[in-house]
Amino acid sequence: MKRFILATHAYMSKGIKSSLELILGKQEHLSVYCAYAEGEPFFKPLVIQEVDEHPEDEFVIMTDLFGGSVNNELLELTTRQNVHVVTGTNLILAMSILLTCPESDDVAATIRNCVEDAKTGIVYCNDMEIDSDLDEL
Amino acid sequence: MKRFILATHAYMSKGIKSSLELILGKQEHLSVYCAYAEGEPFFKPLVIQEVDEHPEDEFVIMTDLFGGSVNNELLELTTRQNVHVVTGTNLILAMSILLTCPESDDVAATIRNCVEDAKTGIVYCNDMEIDSDLDEL
Repeated sequence: MKRFILATHAYMSKGIKSSLELILGKQEHLSVYCAYAEGEPFFKPLVIQEVDEHPEDEFVIMTDLFGGSVNNELLELTTRQNVHVVTGTNLILAMSILLTCPESDDVAATIRNCVEDAKTGIVYCNDMEIDSDLDEL
Repeated sequence: MKRFILATHAYMSKGIKSSLELILGKQEHLSVYCAYAEGEPFFKPLVIQEVDEHPEDEFVIMTDLFGGSVNNELLELTTRQNVHVVTGTNLILAMSILLTCPESDDVAATIRNCVEDAKTGIVYCNDMEIDSDLDEL
């Protein structure tokens, strides 16, 4: 089975989960960790515990910031055969990972595709000139 | 003055704001809209109202999904001279926009740089081979 984790500074992870569930429906195998938020326990041992509890499962951990402390704390998990870590998460990345990884036989390759889609999905819309295109139709 | 808006499906926008404030401190000029969340009013007229109330200010609106309904609803605002819309928001994009746009004389150019940074920040960390690099040191 594939399992998914969102780990971010504060409540971004919880917020992304709410957006995902609004669009895709309930996500049974998606955990969230709100790092450094008031009253929240330190996330790292909890993530490790979750991974340790499911050695037969494959994990995709999505974090917020490359070079940020949440991602840095979890990077060592990439040494495990059953753990993937991806950072810079936006909604496209999270959606495409949740839609494509569960049935994938090659999660690494699938994640690489999702990363490319997520990059393509970051767009400065004013440069699209939608209205002038529409005017021409 | 520059003003910033996060508008997403459900609570991603509120979550990103909490992450931004944890890292950067309080953001006085950042509004959030949680579209289609239970009990929330329809976001589009509220965003338009906020923009209308500050015709002398420059707005950067950050949304979640290219092709998603939140972004689609707000695209028409790109026809206004003082409104920029960017989509595919991740934490890097939001952080760099909030850090660099307030003092920018050319917000469009600044946003284009932020978009490139945000794309670069989406990384499949297992491909980085950190540990083998460390072993070699």
